[in-house]
Amino acid sequence: MKHAGSSIPAGSRVAAGVADAGFAHAALIALDWGTTSLRAYLYDADGHVLATRASTAGIMNLPRSAEQGGFDAAFDDACGAWLEQASGVPVIAAGMVGSAQGWLEAPYVDAPANADALVAGIVRVQAASGATLHIVPGVLQRGELPNVMRGEETQIVGALSEDASAAKTAASGQRALIGLPGTHAKWAVVQAGRIERFHTFMTGEVFAALRKHTILGRTMVTPDRPDTEAFLHGVNIAREKGQAGMLATIFSARTLGLTGQLAGDRQPDYLSGLLIGHELSGLEAVLTQQQESLATQSLRLIGNEALCERYRLALARFGCTRVELVKHATERGLWRVACQAGLVKPAAQPARAG
Amino acid sequence: MKHAGSSIPAGSRVAAGVADAGFAHAALIALDWGTTSLRAYLYDADGHVLATRASTAGIMNLPRSAEQGGFDAAFDDACGAWLEQASGVPVIAAGMVGSAQGWLEAPYVDAPANADALVAGIVRVQAASGATLHIVPGVLQRGELPNVMRGEETQIVGALSEDASAAKTAASGQRALIGLPGTHAKWAVVQAGRIERFHTFMTGEVFAALRKHTILGRTMVTPDRPDTEAFLHGVNIAREKGQAGMLATIFSARTLGLTGQLAGDRQPDYLSGLLIGHELSGLEAVLTQQQESLATQSLRLIGNEALCERYRLALARFGCTRVELVKHATERGLWRVACQAGLVKPAAQPARAG
Repeated sequence: MKHAGSSIPAGSRVAAGVADAGFAHAALIALDWGTTSLRAYLYDADGHVLATRASTAGIMNLPRSAEQGGFDAAFDDACGAWLEQASGVPVIAAGMVGSAQGWLEAPYVDAPANADALVAGIVRVQAASGATLHIVPGVLQRGELPNVMRGEETQIVGALSEDASAAKTAASGQRALIGLPGTHAKWAVVQAGRIERFHTFMTGEVFAALRKHTILGRTMVTPDRPDTEAFLHGVNIAREKGQAGMLATIFSARTLGLTGQLAGDRQPDYLSGLLIGHELSGLEAVLTQQQESLATQSLRLIGNEALCERYRLALARFGCTRVELVKHATERGLWRVACQAGLVKPAAQPARAG
Repeated sequence: MKHAGSSIPAGSRVAAGVADAGFAHAALIALDWGTTSLRAYLYDADGHVLATRASTAGIMNLPRSAEQGGFDAAFDDACGAWLEQASGVPVIAAGMVGSAQGWLEAPYVDAPANADALVAGIVRVQAASGATLHIVPGVLQRGELPNVMRGEETQIVGALSEDASAAKTAASGQRALIGLPGTHAKWAVVQAGRIERFHTFMTGEVFAALRKHTILGRTMVTPDRPDTEAFLHGVNIAREKGQAGMLATIFSARTLGLTGQLAGDRQPDYLSGLLIGHELSGLEAVLTQQQESLATQSLRLIGNEALCERYRLALARFGCTRVELVKHATERGLWRVACQAGLVKPAAQPARAG
């Protein structure tokens, strides 16, 4: 078992000194259980993370099949030792573990949805070891182009939990935009602690498919380090010359190579810039319909830090410079939902966060 | 060797009676030699196709490597028997055989380009059998988003050769749009027999990559027959609700399934409609910049008949109903370029087509 080197404040208040955080103080186990990975967090009663575990036992990558107890095996492997030492500690989980292919389906709750709605949608599954997992549902936005999220809703709750802190209380009633870059990038409009609506862009997965399974990948060479100039060139092309759409602009990753204008090791970052540029152009078009724009937004990003940094650079090209990276949104969100569900009674939680 | 059941008029005039078309009358061998296939045509002096051969010996699929004489082997296999009986007959070829990975590179000629420019760019390679292949170059459009074609330029010349016929002479000076749906769909603006400029949309290849290598394919089932309703629903969504762009709309192929609104066997055609809809929306955006629109276009399509039929349906949703399918554009184009190059002296060619 690995202990976290330092305790991460996941609660909404500034960390009090918890110098000797041991399992005796364990108050919650939380799982971020996705398709290809499983992360487990052990918290004390102040919402500080005492220890973490990570494995590749995502729901599509279990040590054995679901029918043969694959979920139990993965759960025991990640949390068995914690539960032995802190039996009876409540367990919460979010992500694809609650999908139709997961341990137990937690049906989507409809958008708009706040933390209370998520709590109301929690389903419970009993593990072979006797522990009860509380699985947080995803969010569904109905319509002609339905949208779904599973896991991101908990991260968004984590980001919003910051608003409860004194300095940001005033901001919590305003409409804001939260971006979650990744395989399926999400952009959520939030207001007063609610997920109002959201969009999904398959940017990361399309990039991987284009690179590995189309002619564009044939001339690509992996660069030694990220090529920011090529990336931003792609962003600019999508933004300024992208009228014909992504199906047209991506072909330039090949033709710029054929004409000696873009070396093979610059093509991956150029293509990445094109796709992220088209994503942000699409988002801008949606905002325009609502008399808004990226340039006037103050927004937050959640996710891999290097990827969020790329988005920050790309957003600047759209005139959006007020971008904040939210750290530990997953841990914060799981803690917050667990509090809201009454699974833990925080030792000294500010009234409005409870 | 297979003989064509009926002779196809490839020349620009109405077919004269060539009842007993034999190899004694052979005047030209022409090859449409692409990445994954090779098609060979034998013509008489009137430009009628006497016989055809087809094989899978595309330049990336040769019977043996290029270094081991793979091109010669494929050429002999396709045309050896014809050349034995009609030795000295000229040979012309178009397509990827003239690329850097082909038999001999025929450097791109710059757009705007007409048939004369293509003829000036022809390169010659001598086969082991002694025959000389005349390889037609592709066309390059320089700029920030360069574009290239190889093979399509010859098909376009074939489509334009129709304009030389009496009834259409008047139309040949007007600007027109020619679409070539497929793996890499091309849309070319032509005027006075010239390819003025063109766009490439990677529609076919992106569809295949999305279907085979992303989450969208997981819930798809191949339908018994093409589902026109699902296809047109996709076209409409892209056209009317596609502001967020393709990276966003394609996710609906999954979410409409998750919400029980689109069965697995309707998802492939829906996705196809989305992509073709985004392609046409992109084309419309480009036309709008030039104070034109799809609705006012009279355009021609070249390619697989079933695919062109889908494009015709999709174009109608954009208000474009004057759509003509051009048949035998490849055979006509190869014949036309060979005439222009002086490789054949048509028996009774109208003056302006020579």
